[in-house]
Amino acid sequence: MPKECRDVIMRNIKIILEYDGTRYHGWQRQANMITIQQVLEESIGTITQEAIRVIGSGRTDAGVHAVNQVANFKTGSKIEVKNLLKGINSLLPYDIVIKEVVDVNAAFHARYDTRSKVYFYQIYNRPVRSALYRHYAWYIREPLDMEMMREAAALLKGTFDFSSFCASKCGIKNHVRKVMNIDIEMNGRCMINIYIEADGFLKYMVRNIVGALVDVGKGKLSSLDLIGILEAKDRKRASITAPACGLFLKEVRY
Amino acid sequence: MPKECRDVIMRNIKIILEYDGTRYHGWQRQANMITIQQVLEESIGTITQEAIRVIGSGRTDAGVHAVNQVANFKTGSKIEVKNLLKGINSLLPYDIVIKEVVDVNAAFHARYDTRSKVYFYQIYNRPVRSALYRHYAWYIREPLDMEMMREAAALLKGTFDFSSFCASKCGIKNHVRKVMNIDIEMNGRCMINIYIEADGFLKYMVRNIVGALVDVGKGKLSSLDLIGILEAKDRKRASITAPACGLFLKEVRY
Repeated sequence: MPKECRDVIMRNIKIILEYDGTRYHGWQRQANMITIQQVLEESIGTITQEAIRVIGSGRTDAGVHAVNQVANFKTGSKIEVKNLLKGINSLLPYDIVIKEVVDVNAAFHARYDTRSKVYFYQIYNRPVRSALYRHYAWYIREPLDMEMMREAAALLKGTFDFSSFCASKCGIKNHVRKVMNIDIEMNGRCMINIYIEADGFLKYMVRNIVGALVDVGKGKLSSLDLIGILEAKDRKRASITAPACGLFLKEVRY
Repeated sequence: MPKECRDVIMRNIKIILEYDGTRYHGWQRQANMITIQQVLEESIGTITQEAIRVIGSGRTDAGVHAVNQVANFKTGSKIEVKNLLKGINSLLPYDIVIKEVVDVNAAFHARYDTRSKVYFYQIYNRPVRSALYRHYAWYIREPLDMEMMREAAALLKGTFDFSSFCASKCGIKNHVRKVMNIDIEMNGRCMINIYIEADGFLKYMVRNIVGALVDVGKGKLSSLDLIGILEAKDRKRASITAPACGLFLKEVRY
């Protein structure tokens, strides 16, 4: 192939990234607000000398973190992947880092190709607040009954209409999602980790489910109540939305 | 006992506290610098309406964290311990919290009565920096040989003159300390935790030992070199001082 032709071939680059969402107004570009997408696009664009459009696997909300967010972008740049990684990371702020850069098939789409995503939610549960995890966990003072929470969580495994756990103005018609796994584990003496894998998530879905499970852990809701809320398909029936700071996008599966 | 006499009895209060040292110039009160001791004394004094002097088990350096620092103070206040805990915590900033308040024997002294202390040091070891642990771990890019580090660490267990691992201007004559335990564990795939228990620590001792162990892990020092450094009793022989952000005071034993 002559050089002139090779020059215009667009590459499709997949990146895996980690970020501390504390300082950001979420993933998606917004006017007058600093977002992960904007910072990424600017840093990548400076390295490749192009206007870059990054497609994320999904939007994380303001204050939500990610350990393995996946995104892709098209570029005409011929910079090797390891140098892209180094160059972009050298421009990214301290709270965003790219862990992997790989060339992928032109058809790969970080959002449309997802098979499932795994989130985990951290709850810090002890009589006094935490001085160390304030940006990375929801602090709950009252003791939580883990067995009750596990029993209730298991009931959410399956394919259901999750309207009751969707933000009131989510603007999506189909609220049916398949929750493949939901696990609750202790990490040390005070940290409770809730893992949820689903084929897709509605806006605030994890945080609304966590809010309900915490009410179960406190004894304010029973497993039966939780089924009632799910079946009501009405957001007004559910518990409070857990704060963003405890939520981490853990993995995106393709 | 008549009420007037009971009023002047001074209580000795022991507190266990947790703090994120990132914002502070260490434990000890200093002119024009915000320190843990100062913030504590002001908050406690506001609750008890006295001038309070807090005695810590030891001074942590600027940027060093604690999960179970121990301190004591004398007070004439009759406020119950559970209300002291609530009241003081309500005044403390988000990055300092008291976990326990107990009345103790008048003779208890948080510093002089210590039998041993346990510190742990976090190293984040992977090809790219961490977006989440930047204030809580030392980031090391090069792979570290855990077996070599464990072998070298074991040689430091025992009673030695730790002059080579003491800050050059520590102002203390006796540099002999007994290291009771030293363990190195992986926490997840990237975090290395080094635990050190000793009957006392010289200034920067943990951080200088960690600096040397990291050089062993990189293959820049052998176990034999480490013994040579220890026996030289000369700070100039040792490796760099590991940064403060990775260090946590874990426990104080009495």
